[in-house]
Formats: sequence, structure tokens, C-alpha cells
Amino acid sequence: MNFRQRSTPAERLRLGFVGGGLDSGIGSTHRYAATLDGQFEIVAGVFSRDAARNAAAGAAIGIAPDRLYGDFETMARAEAARADGIHAVAIATPNAQHVPAALAFLAAGIDVICDKPLATDLAEARRLAAALRPDGPGFVLTHNYSGHAMVREARERVAAGEIGAVRVVQVEHAAGFGTHPLERAGAKALAWRTDPAQAGVSSVLLDVGTHAHQLARYITGLEVAEVAADVNTLVEGRGSDDNAHALLRFDSGARGSLWASIVAAGNRHGLKISVYGSKAALHWNQEQPEELVIAPQDGPRVVVRRGEPWTSDAAKRATRIKAGQAEGVLEAFANIYSDAAELIRARRFGTEASDHARRVPGAADGVKGLAFVEACVRSARAGGGWTAVAQ
Amino acid sequence: MNFRQRSTPAERLRLGFVGGGLDSGIGSTHRYAATLDGQFEIVAGVFSRDAARNAAAGAAIGIAPDRLYGDFETMARAEAARADGIHAVAIATPNAQHVPAALAFLAAGIDVICDKPLATDLAEARRLAAALRPDGPGFVLTHNYSGHAMVREARERVAAGEIGAVRVVQVEHAAGFGTHPLERAGAKALAWRTDPAQAGVSSVLLDVGTHAHQLARYITGLEVAEVAADVNTLVEGRGSDDNAHALLRFDSGARGSLWASIVAAGNRHGLKISVYGSKAALHWNQEQPEELVIAPQDGPRVVVRRGEPWTSDAAKRATRIKAGQAEGVLEAFANIYSDAAELIRARRFGTEASDHARRVPGAADGVKGLAFVEACVRSARAGGGWTAVAQ
Amino acid sequence: MNFRQRSTPAERLRLGFVGGGLDSGIGSTHRYAATLDGQFEIVAGVFSRDAARNAAAGAAIGIAPDRLYGDFETMARAEAARADGIHAVAIATPNAQHVPAALAFLAAGIDVICDKPLATDLAEARRLAAALRPDGPGFVLTHNYSGHAMVREARERVAAGEIGAVRVVQVEHAAGFGTHPLERAGAKALAWRTDPAQAGVSSVLLDVGTHAHQLARYITGLEVAEVAADVNTLVEGRGSDDNAHALLRFDSGARGSLWASIVAAGNRHGLKISVYGSKAALHWNQEQPEELVIAPQDGPRVVVRRGEPWTSDAAKRATRIKAGQAEGVLEAFANIYSDAAELIRARRFGTEASDHARRVPGAADGVKGLAFVEACVRSARAGGGWTAVAQ
Amino acid sequence: MNFRQRSTPAERLRLGFVGGGLDSGIGSTHRYAATLDGQFEIVAGVFSRDAARNAAAGAAIGIAPDRLYGDFETMARAEAARADGIHAVAIATPNAQHVPAALAFLAAGIDVICDKPLATDLAEARRLAAALRPDGPGFVLTHNYSGHAMVREARERVAAGEIGAVRVVQVEHAAGFGTHPLERAGAKALAWRTDPAQAGVSSVLLDVGTHAHQLARYITGLEVAEVAADVNTLVEGRGSDDNAHALLRFDSGARGSLWASIVAAGNRHGLKISVYGSKAALHWNQEQPEELVIAPQDGPRVVVRRGEPWTSDAAKRATRIKAGQAEGVLEAFANIYSDAAELIRARRFGTEASDHARRVPGAADGVKGLAFVEACVRSARAGGGWTAVAQ
Repeated sequence: MNFRQRSTPAERLRLGFVGGGLDSGIGSTHRYAATLDGQFEIVAGVFSRDAARNAAAGAAIGIAPDRLYGDFETMARAEAARADGIHAVAIATPNAQHVPAALAFLAAGIDVICDKPLATDLAEARRLAAALRPDGPGFVLTHNYSGHAMVREARERVAAGEIGAVRVVQVEHAAGFGTHPLERAGAKALAWRTDPAQAGVSSVLLDVGTHAHQLARYITGLEVAEVAADVNTLVEGRGSDDNAHALLRFDSGARGSLWASIVAAGNRHGLKISVYGSKAALHWNQEQPEELVIAPQDGPRVVVRRGEPWTSDAAKRATRIKAGQAEGVLEAFANIYSDAAELIRARRFGTEASDHARRVPGAADGVKGLAFVEACVRSARAGGGWTAVAQ
Repeated sequence: MNFRQRSTPAERLRLGFVGGGLDSGIGSTHRYAATLDGQFEIVAGVFSRDAARNAAAGAAIGIAPDRLYGDFETMARAEAARADGIHAVAIATPNAQHVPAALAFLAAGIDVICDKPLATDLAEARRLAAALRPDGPGFVLTHNYSGHAMVREARERVAAGEIGAVRVVQVEHAAGFGTHPLERAGAKALAWRTDPAQAGVSSVLLDVGTHAHQLARYITGLEVAEVAADVNTLVEGRGSDDNAHALLRFDSGARGSLWASIVAAGNRHGLKISVYGSKAALHWNQEQPEELVIAPQDGPRVVVRRGEPWTSDAAKRATRIKAGQAEGVLEAFANIYSDAAELIRARRFGTEASDHARRVPGAADGVKGLAFVEACVRSARAGGGWTAVAQ
Repeated sequence: MNFRQRSTPAERLRLGFVGGGLDSGIGSTHRYAATLDGQFEIVAGVFSRDAARNAAAGAAIGIAPDRLYGDFETMARAEAARADGIHAVAIATPNAQHVPAALAFLAAGIDVICDKPLATDLAEARRLAAALRPDGPGFVLTHNYSGHAMVREARERVAAGEIGAVRVVQVEHAAGFGTHPLERAGAKALAWRTDPAQAGVSSVLLDVGTHAHQLARYITGLEVAEVAADVNTLVEGRGSDDNAHALLRFDSGARGSLWASIVAAGNRHGLKISVYGSKAALHWNQEQPEELVIAPQDGPRVVVRRGEPWTSDAAKRATRIKAGQAEGVLEAFANIYSDAAELIRARRFGTEASDHARRVPGAADGVKGLAFVEACVRSARAGGGWTAVAQ
Repeated sequence: MNFRQRSTPAERLRLGFVGGGLDSGIGSTHRYAATLDGQFEIVAGVFSRDAARNAAAGAAIGIAPDRLYGDFETMARAEAARADGIHAVAIATPNAQHVPAALAFLAAGIDVICDKPLATDLAEARRLAAALRPDGPGFVLTHNYSGHAMVREARERVAAGEIGAVRVVQVEHAAGFGTHPLERAGAKALAWRTDPAQAGVSSVLLDVGTHAHQLARYITGLEVAEVAADVNTLVEGRGSDDNAHALLRFDSGARGSLWASIVAAGNRHGLKISVYGSKAALHWNQEQPEELVIAPQDGPRVVVRRGEPWTSDAAKRATRIKAGQAEGVLEAFANIYSDAAELIRARRFGTEASDHARRVPGAADGVKGLAFVEACVRSARAGGGWTAVAQ
């Protein structure tokens, strides 16, 4: 199994954008990720509902004027009608537009690569999932941490039985960017996140909690069956929640806890996971993504690094450069995009998609995420007792 | 404020032991801690109920034959009657004997230094607390992590407002020593811990959970008001619980979570805490006890180390050697003993005890610990809902 | 100062390649770096002297058949003659071809971006430098570690006096890839490196030693004036040296030491530097490139991270995503390419190049590197005494 | 092999002190180390040449007035004449008095435990070594880092061939305490260290360089055969050197470098070593003494910790508490004292000394240290060329 390589210009898929304009934090990350491996070229988009901002983004990103649209419905219709129309669309809007935009492009026969969370509530998530057809356009959800080579290594090692039966999962995605109420000072990223109409049933759980939930599922292969949760607003006067804790019971009987926060002062990103089994534990920290720590009960601690010969095929395929030279978030995010490209090519051109690409997060993962969030919210409102996660 | 120094032989207090024989893990730690600073000499004891083991321990520890006793009641009476009787007793037995032994020595006018947890249930803990008199012998509970210089530094910095108002406390004491069911293979430390008759209402919460609870209280100055908990036996067939998770609500409104486990495979000790405030966070890990990490939201991360000039008086007083040369658990544990010595001298000889010594954990802390454990157990049995901690 | 953004397709510069074929470790890194920010498109090249390999690389990289050349002389002439000829060439061959290829493209008026080391000996390096004209095409040397945001931060902080006067520099680039004599088993990367004809006057010093030397110069702004060195072959029977130590005296009077090795078993990459001044020290490790540790003598240790608000403009400009989400080597390498693009545009299109871009390593740095290597070799041959570095 | 335990009072050896008074940094460390395991009781001493300071120290340390002496010659004679005279003396004076004091006690038949460096020059060191007799009193040199369990583990693993043949040794002891010229402000520890009359032929090399040199020898079992060195005064106007670099050639042909400094700003202690072999490397850092990192070329990195079951007998014997609960410098230093006690008992009481105890550093190590220091000084004065270390 070789490392990833950049593909040739001739092979590039055409990609459109909805959202992700110049003042979007995540927009440029999506663009870096889409193009890093030469899998996509960005040729169309609607980057903002504000016409001036949309025009500025189109120019900066290099979109031809006739492929810069005022709304996503028009874009979906027009691109579907072009011979050189986009193969896929990237959706990087606030949460509330994910499903409406995705449905429009799916209906137009265009593959969708959508930022997380899938939707603002479970019913909407299920509507999206119900719209997918086995032979229709595909849907990839950019739970980008699944793209890290060492997360994939962790998944392989758990699946191979290296840590034994999973007993406890400790996961947290606790960021600090909401420590101060900067939404009152006009901080855009906080403004929409703290507006329940745009953010959904639980701002903090949808924003960061779903990442933690997905990471736990992805690595362990287990589903969260029940939660007992506490969901709070710790910055006084904030319009949404900003901190949540949940106790977890997995379908296998394993236990765990999850912490999601945007008020973890001093945390820059704050996503990390430990999975304890009957023989060993695995530890991974998003801020040092190149290392996977394996801690056996009956032997010394081992540090496995991306690019090393003894990593799995799954990890090697998510790797571009040798061990000891850091890859980072753009590369992990690009792995998601490059997996998506493989699926899109398979559907459109009849090539073979690898098992690795087929494991990329999709609509079913998004539905699981919303079901988890809604169960946490119900548990919290009911006083913290155990609450089943809809399966 | 100077660093600690060894005291002179002339000043040594006479100490007896109950428990802590040669096959006790904690016994030798207590002896190292008691004598490190030259505060105590060990002159009497009952180390085992087995006569041969008791004799062997007495010889190895250097106890004169006439001060090696068959039971603690006899010892308390006999020592109280001697002109050169012990000033204090160290209790290092399994949990169920803590209170009976302590009561015997208190009744004999002898100060008590007792291993944690205080008792096997809350009622027993309260009985012990009720037996204490303002002018009577004192009671110190060896929550030894409170003895680390950088834990004391953390407490000082929280109290001084450096992190702002506490919002979230994440604490875990998750050890791996119970990963395998070695109690069935005769491992003594696991055998009594997994026997509810000896261990108490919750083995895992009393054994390690109370350390995590005390550490959170000690550093933040807050009390846990309510818990929602899950308490489990994750090693099949084990006689006691071995893993517990709790969501926390503090009296101030702060939130948090606590994880206590003896099945955290690969964890050697596994005690760590993060305290997030409205301005910054503090991080401390028992396995790297020399460092306190301070993570402001609005500035870069800072690492403060034991022995550095800019540490507090409280930390300096808990220090023996300069920064960069590690102190460890024996030194932290010795800080508890040396604080205890200061209190004992104050009571017996009318010297002044410092505020630092007066903050050493005592019976009230033990009662809080038992109240916390019982609330967790009640919550878990009731299906995980919020449960008040008895105050 | 904003973070870097991808540029638009319309703005792309046309780039050719010499070397860096499919079996080249560094080739794909150059291609990722050239295209990450959308600054270049790769349109021409000679990737191998072997025709079949050259054709395979051209196809894989997406080069039009008429722009895939058999040798660099032809390529330089042909591209210079095209209206849509390349703006710049990337040279990623073994060391011995760097200068010949560079001279050919410079003579054809084409800007050069060349892998390090500049040349195989000092005389050749000086010939290259002498061929550059103030108004002619430019020359960028990809000392890629200068591209890391936190290396640039280090430079800014030293220049601003934050650590006081530099007293000691400790730098090492000690890799493990030559631990075993795999050149005998046909490992291509080791085969040419251990062939003095291809590698130059000192394989280990040219390969990794020049990185360490450049990093020290880049961060401190000082020049190495004298060396006392030991250069050795530690794997028996190897055709070249593989380990070198040098004591350093800087022009300011500062002292230091440098270690270059390819036999540092277990080291994956192994580049790190510490700079000690009269007030504080800086520490940077290429394997954790996101952090710059600042260790004042009179205060606690501080960890500054890429993307944090309190970093310099120089660091922010070398940044794409927010703090806490790792960037890595491809991004650092892309910073070199994007700086090069800025210089090329300035020359060709009259735009303004920033001071940041003007600090990118060039021919003068390459000459300094070769002078350093030759001084080390002379010192070693003379029995280790102090030897002046040609200025 | 069991962990160390405290010995009984009945077994204590009687120890005297020369130097190490109340204002000595190292004095209290020696006292902690001597008594931690209950091996010694301190019963006599001359702590200062100043009578008032001597009296104060004697009182604080608990010395009976008739065993507090005005000079070491008197003490040696008087103690030798007592039936209850000291078994051993600890020498913790400035360097210049080590040998005179040691000779006096050896002549009186009293075992000596002496702080490092052995002497202020090689001739004096050899005089001391020449005074030792196979059947006479012993001499232990407190190179305390040899006492760390994980240093002993490192030695065992190198000896067992785990890293293959040693190729490169990188060692540094670079402290920051001399960053500012505090000797001018009256800092006592700096005042004598920067006075060549008290410090010896090279202050920095004798003070910290000998620790680095001894650590390299102890772990690898190799001797430094030749050096090429640079010895400097980097703080202007200082009376002694304060920084030294040396290239190393070992008798086996292995290479390396050593850095000794007291002007490494921000370093608290700064002793660390890496040993690279033909198969793997070992890394140990005195500031995290509990961990030994093993980095194989052909496998992932492993972290071995003190107290783990898979450590060697040599490491276990230097251990008191279980893995995950830190031991530190006092415990390491106590290992040296307890090894010394074992040797003293063997000589005096005919008990068996273990091989572990026999490996404790002694006079031969001190002679090697002085020979190394003098070779560095000669090399530096001669312009940095290779200089043989007297064997």
C-alpha cells in the first residue's frame, strides 16, 4: 500500500460551493482540502446571500462570473443543465441550511460533500437520509477527524482486537472560543452558533459534541445506546447552550463519558479520546495528531507515528509524507475529500472504490449524531436520567 | 518562606502503626512519609492480625518487642499509659477498620493520622467526626495528593482569582491494577478491595473516587452539591464495582465530571485534573507532579514548576529541593505527615500551627467524601438522575 | 495581517520540474508544496534520465507530452521559447545536478526554485551565485524549515531582543534512515547519498547538516565564523560519511554545537534547535512544529503556538488555519513556494514583494552552507582544530 | 528482586558531616538522602568554619555539642577514638576541601562519602585514589544521577545489547543558575563556583561537566579517550569559565558531544542524555527521571517507567514505590547512600555486598572525571584540537 499522491489535472472533478465565503473560518479549509490532492477544481458557487460578499468571494476564489449564483436552488438547476456542470457540491453554511441545500443538489443528481452536523434536528436528518438512493448521488459528511491517519490506525487496531473488548471510552471536544461572550461584540462565528434558529437543538452538542460522538463511534465500531446528560449555558446571558456532559452506555455494554464545550478557557481545539479495553488502551489527541499511544496493561507504553512501516494499510493510504515530518488538519480533511472523490468516480465512471473510501462518514453517521444530540437534550431536560438514543 | 528542612532527632514525635505490614503496599509509603522530614520515629504498632506476620513486621521495622501489640485496643490503652507513649498513630488498614481503630486511639487521647477513605459508609464517617473535640486529639486524613507542592500552588492561584470563576472541573482517578481479575489468583490488594465487607459501599469510589473528589474540592474550594452517576462492574464476575462515572454540579453552579476506575488498562496511576474558569484553566497530572500548566484564554500557555521563585508560599513550604530536580510522591505524602506533626505539636506543646498545616485534610473532608460516594451509589441505583450530596 | 489563502486559478504561475520523479521522496513534497496555495500549476518537466520512468512520471503528474523533456538543457530552451512557457522551474535532483540545471534555466531567463544543498562544493556554489543578476531571474533555495510559522516567530522574537544577546546555539539534524547499510540492498535514496560523486564533499553535512546550519542562521541572524569538527563514517564500509559533529563560534562571539547524522537510530526526522540568550532561551523541534517554547531565566516557561493572536505578523502570514489544528511540513514547504511566487510576480509583473517573502532562503544562503560544510571537512581532516568559515 | 525498604533503627550506621551547613544547597539533600532509607543517623560534624554558623547548624541538625567540631582533622581523630564513633563521613564542602578532608578520615579508618567532583585537579584526585587500600575504608563519590532507577535500567539495557553497538552519545548538563552574574550580588553558591581557587581547573566542567561525563560512562560502559573542546566565559567579567563544549571520541570508536553550562537561560536543571546504537537509541532526561525512552530503528518508540514489572533487577532494587507514583532526586541520591551503606557494612560487619552496590561511583570514577576535565582544558587552550584523556 503506497502513500497518497496528487492526482493529475486531467482527472479533476468539478466542485461547487454553497457557503464558505471569505469570512468563513471553515470555507478556506474546505477549499484547501478539496484541492490538496488535485482531486477537485472549484468552478461554481454561491458563497454568501449578500450579493457584494458573494461577488468578492467568487473573484477571490476564481469562479467564472456565469457560475457564481445568487442562491443554491438556481445553482443546482443550472449546474445540472451544463455539460461541464459540477460533479459535486461542498456545503459549508451554518447548520440550518445543510439539509435544504443538500436536498436540492441530490435532486439535481449532484453528489454532496456536507459539513457537519448533518442537520439541526433528527427529523430533518432523517429526511435527508430518506432522500438518498442506492444508485443516486452520494452524500459525504465531513467529520474530518476520521481523516487523520492515526485515527484510522486506531480503528484498525481496535478492530483487530489489540486492546481486547472495549470497556470505557473517554472523549472530549472542549474548545475555548466561547469563553468570552464575543457574540455580543459581533463575532460572526459565535453569533450564529449562539442563535438556536441557526444552530439547532443544541449548539454545543451539534458543533463539537457530534465530532466527539463520531470519533468514538469511528474508532470503536460501537454505538451509543443510552445517555445521561447535563446541558448548560455557562456564560451568563448567552442565547444557546455552551457546555454539555454526557455519561455513555454503548450497545456492547461499554461505558464512557463525553464532554462538549466551547467555554473551555485556554483550550485551542481540545478534541481527544481514550479507549480502554480488556488488554490495553489507545490514546489520541487532535492537537498532536501524528501520534497514537498504545498502553498495554502488561507491557510498556508504545508510541506509533504516522508514516511508520508498521502502521496499517488504512493509515498508510491516508499518508503523504514520511514519518517525522508532520501532516496536519488540512491533510486529514483532504483525506475525506479524496475518499469522496473515489466514491464519486466509482458512481460516475464505474471505477472501483476501496473499502477505505467506503468508510468515509455519510448520512447514516449524521443521523446517529442527531439522535445522540436529541437524546442528550431530552435527558438533560428530564433531570439527567438515562435516555435511549434513537437507533 | 523557606523550603522544608529535616527536623532534629530531639524533636521527633513518637508514632505507632495500625496495619501497614510488610505485604501492604501503602505501609512502607506511610513509613517513608512519616520519617522523611525527621518529624516522627516509629516506636509501636500492630501490623497484622496474624501473629507471625506481626512479629516479622515488628522486627523489620525495628519495634521493641514490648511495643508490638496483638490488637489496636490493647495498643491504645498501653501506649496511653506509658510515659513515653506514642504521640500519634498511623492507621493503614483496609477501610473497614479505619473508624474502629481511630475511635480507640482518640479515646486514649492519641492523635490519629488515618489513610483514606475515612470509613466504609457515611454513618460511620459521621460517628468518627462526632467523636472529635476541639480540645481533644486531632485527626488527619492522608489524602496525599493535597501534599504536592503544585496542587497547593493550584489552590492558591484559584483562590487568588487567576482563572476567574470556576466553570468546569474534569477530574479522573483511573488506575489499571484491576484490569485483570487477579483477586481470583490471590492478589491481596485486589482481594480485599473487591470484598464489599472490607471495602465499603463502593469499592472503586472509596478507593480512588474519593481522591479525585478531594482533589477537586481542595483546589477549587467548592463543594459537590449534586451528582448523576453510573457505577459498574466491568470485569465479569467481580465481587465489587470497579468503574464509576459521575456528572457533577458544584454549589457555585460550576459543572464537571469525575471518572473513577481500577480497570483503566495501561494506566499506571491515572489521577489528573483540569479546572476551567472564566479566564483560564489549570491542568495537573499526578504522574508529572512537578508541573502546573496554566492556560489562559487570552495568552499563551504557561508551565509553572515546583521550586521556582514565582510559586506561592504554600508551594514553597511543601518543597525541599530546587526546581528541576524532581520531588515525588514520598515527598508529597511527607508533607501531609509534617503538617500533621505541626498540628500535633501545637496541641501538645502549645507551638503555633501555620495556616498551611491547618489546611491538611481531616475528618470533615472524609465525611464529605463518604457523602459524595453514597450520593453516587444512590444515583446509580435510581437510574442515573441527579441526587443531592448530603452536606 | 491575515492568514494565507489559496490564490485563484487565474493567477497561477507555470512551473516546470527537473527531477522529483515518482520514486523520489522529495518530488511529491515539492508538488504538494507548489500547488497547495494555488500559486503554481505544473506544466512541464524532465523527471528522470530514464525514458520510461520519465514518461510514467509525466503521465502521472499530468504533463502534456510536448512538454515532457529528455534533458534539462532542451527543456530550458524550449520553455523559454514558448509564449506559455514556464515562469519557474523546481529542481529536485540529486545534489550534483543542482547547479548545472539551475544555470541552464537562469540563462534562459527562468526563475529557479532549487532543493538544498545548493551545490556539491563551495566553488560550484559560488559559480551559481555569480551567475545571478539583480534584474535577472531569481533563485530560491528550499530550506523548507524556514517556512514553519513558529520558526519565523522564533526569528522575530530573537530580533526583537526577547531572549537578550545570543550566547549558545545547540542544533541537530540527526535522522535514522542510514542506521542500516540499506544502500547495499538497493535503497535508492541511500545509494546516491552515499556516493560522493553524487552527494558532494560531505554527504551527511550537505544532506542534513546544511538544514541545521541554515536554521541556526535564520533564527539568530548570526553567521558561523569558525568550526572545529569531526566527520565520520560510523556504518562500516559505507562509501560516504554519515555522522558529523561541529563546535561553533559565531561572528558575535556566541558559541554552540551542531550534530548532523543519518545514523541516529530511532530518530524519525530529528531536527531541533535551542537558542540560549542572556535573558531567555527558545526551543523548537521540527517534529512538533506548532509550538515554540520560550524559557525565560526569570519567569515560567511559555508555549506559543501557531495561529495564536499574540504571534507576529511573520508567523501569521505563514499560517492557514487557526491554532489547535495542526499544520505540518507540506504547509511549511508551501510557504517557501508561495514566498517564491511573490518574488517571481514582483519581478515579472511589477507587483510589490513583502519583506516576509524577501527573507526566503536564496543563493547567498546556499553559499554560506557550502562554506560551512567545507570548513567542517577541513577541520576534521586537520585533526579537529578551529577552522574559519569562508565569508 | 524486591523494592527497597526502610531499614530498622537498630541497623543504622553513624554518619558525620563535613560541610553542608544550613546555607548549603546540597547539605540538606545529603541529609535527606542519608536518612531516607534509615541507613544512617547523623551524629557528628563540622558544618562551617565560622563558629557561629557551625553551632547553628549543629543545633538545627541535632548534633550533640561534644560531637560538633571546629575542623575536620580534630573530628577525624576524635571520632576514630570513640567507641561509638562514626562509621562514615559525608563531605559536602566546596571542591577544594574534598581531598584534604577525605584523606584525614581515610587515615582515621573512617569510610568516606564525598560530593563530586572528587578534586580540583587530576594530581590531587590521583593522590586520593592512591591513598585507598583494598582492605581499608571505602570511598563513594555521590554522582547521584547514577542512583536513578531508570539510569540503572538504561545501563542494563545497553549492557544486554538492546541498542546494539553504541555509535553516538549526546549528553548535556546545562543549567541556568549562572545566567546573571549574581556572584557580584553576593550569591554564595555562585561566589565560590566562580572563584578558581575554590572551584578548580574548570568551574563549569567540574561542577556540571563531570556529571554529564559520568552519566555517559555509567550508561554505556565506555571511556572517553579523546576530546576536542571549547571552554569559555560567556558572562563578561566573570572570574571563571561558565560554558564548555566538547567533542568526544570513546575508546570503542563511538563519537559524541558534551555540553556543560551554567548560563543556559531558562534551564532549571538541564541534564539529559541520548545514546544511539546500531539498533536503537535510549533517551533519558533528569527532569523526567521516571521514564526511559527506547527508540528502535525498526519499531515504534517505547516508554519504560520506574516500577514496571518488566524493568531490570537493578532498577527494581533502586525503587521504593509502584509505577505511576513519582520518585525523584532525593530517592536517587538515597540509592547512592544506601549502596554506600551496603559496602560499609560488608567491610565492617562481613555481610555480603551486592553487585548493584559495588557499581556505585567511587574514586576511580572521580579520577576519570578529572582526567576528562583537564583534557578539555588542554584542548581548549591549544585551539580545540583532539587531546587524549589520561587513562
